[in-house]
Amino acid sequence: MHSQRLRIGFVMLHTSPLDVPGTKDAGGMNVVVRAQAEALARAGHEVTIFTRRSDPAPAPRTVLASGLTVVQIDAGPPRLLAKGEHEGVMDRFGELLDAELRAAPVELLHAEHWFSGIAALPVARAHGVPLVQSYHSIAAPPESPLGAGERPESPGRLAGERRLAHEVDLVIAVSEAERRTVIERLDGDEDRVRVVPLGVDTELFHPCDSPECEEDRDWFGSGGRPEAIVVGRLHPLKGFDLVIDAIAVMDPARRPMLRVVGSPPPDGDDYARSLHEAVARHGLLATTAFDGALRRRDLAERIRRASIMLVPSHSETFGLVALEAAASGVPVIARDAGGLREAVIDGETGVLIPVDPAGDDPRVWAEAIDRLLADAPRRERMGAAARAYALRRSWDASAARLLEVYRELLARVSAPAQRETSVVSKE
Amino acid sequence: MHSQRLRIGFVMLHTSPLDVPGTKDAGGMNVVVRAQAEALARAGHEVTIFTRRSDPAPAPRTVLASGLTVVQIDAGPPRLLAKGEHEGVMDRFGELLDAELRAAPVELLHAEHWFSGIAALPVARAHGVPLVQSYHSIAAPPESPLGAGERPESPGRLAGERRLAHEVDLVIAVSEAERRTVIERLDGDEDRVRVVPLGVDTELFHPCDSPECEEDRDWFGSGGRPEAIVVGRLHPLKGFDLVIDAIAVMDPARRPMLRVVGSPPPDGDDYARSLHEAVARHGLLATTAFDGALRRRDLAERIRRASIMLVPSHSETFGLVALEAAASGVPVIARDAGGLREAVIDGETGVLIPVDPAGDDPRVWAEAIDRLLADAPRRERMGAAARAYALRRSWDASAARLLEVYRELLARVSAPAQRETSVVSKE
Repeated sequence: MHSQRLRIGFVMLHTSPLDVPGTKDAGGMNVVVRAQAEALARAGHEVTIFTRRSDPAPAPRTVLASGLTVVQIDAGPPRLLAKGEHEGVMDRFGELLDAELRAAPVELLHAEHWFSGIAALPVARAHGVPLVQSYHSIAAPPESPLGAGERPESPGRLAGERRLAHEVDLVIAVSEAERRTVIERLDGDEDRVRVVPLGVDTELFHPCDSPECEEDRDWFGSGGRPEAIVVGRLHPLKGFDLVIDAIAVMDPARRPMLRVVGSPPPDGDDYARSLHEAVARHGLLATTAFDGALRRRDLAERIRRASIMLVPSHSETFGLVALEAAASGVPVIARDAGGLREAVIDGETGVLIPVDPAGDDPRVWAEAIDRLLADAPRRERMGAAARAYALRRSWDASAARLLEVYRELLARVSAPAQRETSVVSKE
Repeated sequence: MHSQRLRIGFVMLHTSPLDVPGTKDAGGMNVVVRAQAEALARAGHEVTIFTRRSDPAPAPRTVLASGLTVVQIDAGPPRLLAKGEHEGVMDRFGELLDAELRAAPVELLHAEHWFSGIAALPVARAHGVPLVQSYHSIAAPPESPLGAGERPESPGRLAGERRLAHEVDLVIAVSEAERRTVIERLDGDEDRVRVVPLGVDTELFHPCDSPECEEDRDWFGSGGRPEAIVVGRLHPLKGFDLVIDAIAVMDPARRPMLRVVGSPPPDGDDYARSLHEAVARHGLLATTAFDGALRRRDLAERIRRASIMLVPSHSETFGLVALEAAASGVPVIARDAGGLREAVIDGETGVLIPVDPAGDDPRVWAEAIDRLLADAPRRERMGAAARAYALRRSWDASAARLLEVYRELLARVSAPAQRETSVVSKE
């Protein structure tokens, strides 16, 4: 439809697309941004990802693929920062981004996470290019209770997110759930929020295709235990404690192995420590593995060998790991919350546990786990349906939708009469 | 030399060759017995492994390969027993073994671990076949101090082991170190102890041969950390606590990832719990993985991806994992103790840490780890030498030596005049 090559700048201040997801501060967002950028580059566009240097090692510019470059910006010390520290480097990052864009202009900026949006907003105005915002996650309402080991949000976050909802040219939500949050919690303008669902790498994440893998999955029958896998940073939002408590209340003979993939975030390992303690307290050390962070292909191998994936997250904007399980032909038991209700089709590709009245009751999870593990034909049916569902959700399809949205925005901003003017000066 | 087909009965009372090493009570001994039995069967002999049923699932007879059968004997409850409980089922196991051998005679019995020896002794006498004993591990002297979480030996063990050293027809030691222990600690007759070194599966355990594997090992240079691996049941004898303490005293920027492979023994997880606590206390949760027990091929993959293996065991009769690391081209840092000094060639295939004066000093281990990790060419040289060393130590070579020893024994017992008579009646 449009063959014109776009020059697009992705701004990802606080975490690098070069980091391994599950390490440092890298999680699902890193996967998403990189996959989307790769798909845009494959479609013939030129994407530059601007990130803050958090490690002295990488070169200033890294060409990841034809049309895809990562630029390290030296704002603040070249080490990992705790989340709260990023607010202190946003201005400097913006100044250096401005200089980069003077040297190599783009037609559109797309900010990932609110730090990036706030840093990019004056730069976009100065260069007269539209700014698109993806939140990836949105702060919980200030009145919501903190989980064990969870820290309060930085005071600037909610204000920053609301400001972006009012001032950027377009907000991209990854799910209907996130779209509603932008409109309701951030007071976003309904006309300037578009849903672009994420994709999944169905080549990397695929069902078992080797005898070894099948043997692992069939191990249940020959004296082993089936395996339940949880994947994510070891943060209270992920709710992994609930899974440990659920397995503890199961009949010991029917308990699955539990595999925990992910490492603690850089701002604290209290929650990780509490998980290790819970496993020891419940006598589950012999049937629990803590894998730490895995590289993507090892993660894919781990997921496809599991019998089920559990996603007890208190909040997921999208729930990418659930879609990765689907691509791997692995059924998911997930909380019926946020984007998970779009990533899992209840009763078809997995099971959703209603939040009310008992979504936090370990016995409810234990029963759901036990029932699905006991029913191999149902798991197989769900696994096949899940794979079919994932195949319709490629990154190329996701990027095509994103481009449509970009084009629509560029058409709008090039017709200034139709645009509300924002009075935003640079600094 | 001898083409005659031997019928050999392996007696392995307390753990099954069908169990996955690292789970239940299965460890290096299960690997060894199965590999030796397979090599004997490949050489054309008929081997039956008699084991106590500890799980209702497996069939009474399992044919593992042509010439290799596992027979489950229903002595005691069909569940895992704690080590101390086995003494109560030895008599019953012997009675049922006797019945099995009446139906299908063997020419020689080979007992694995002392439980099996005591159970098999009267049976061998009743059937007039020689009994060969492998200890796999020998009780520590009663005066030696217990490690944290370690339980005292069952009172019958040392007496049982000494009785076997006096009464069996031949003791097989896996190393010079074990031969000396049999003679010195158990008062064994020097003429009736033979060393038959173990082998290693150099097809399963091989160096990296894929770009993914190489990439993992090279990750150090691209912002990751090298990986140190420890493998074994989570038991105080393995000394894994020392490795955790050593990594804790290293410069944080130079610490390796630590991968702990193995699960707690069935008689207690106190030690496993103390390891998790130590990792949390030292702030190492983000750089430590607890894999639990792995199947053999997954273990092999994990080992070949590691930069170094650490074997801080207080005692190893042989140290099979060190030889598996060698076969994988991975240098080993091990305590200069027991069989480890034969499994690792100090300065060539790895580094031996002298027991005195500082073998328990974490700083000594930290320095050795740091030095080897910092010297990639040395690691590469050692890895190549280690692989070459392992290639000379196949299981077929080990089994050929075992057969020589069997033949020598059978020749001796068929010449009764030269044999001391033991007066042992069957119950």
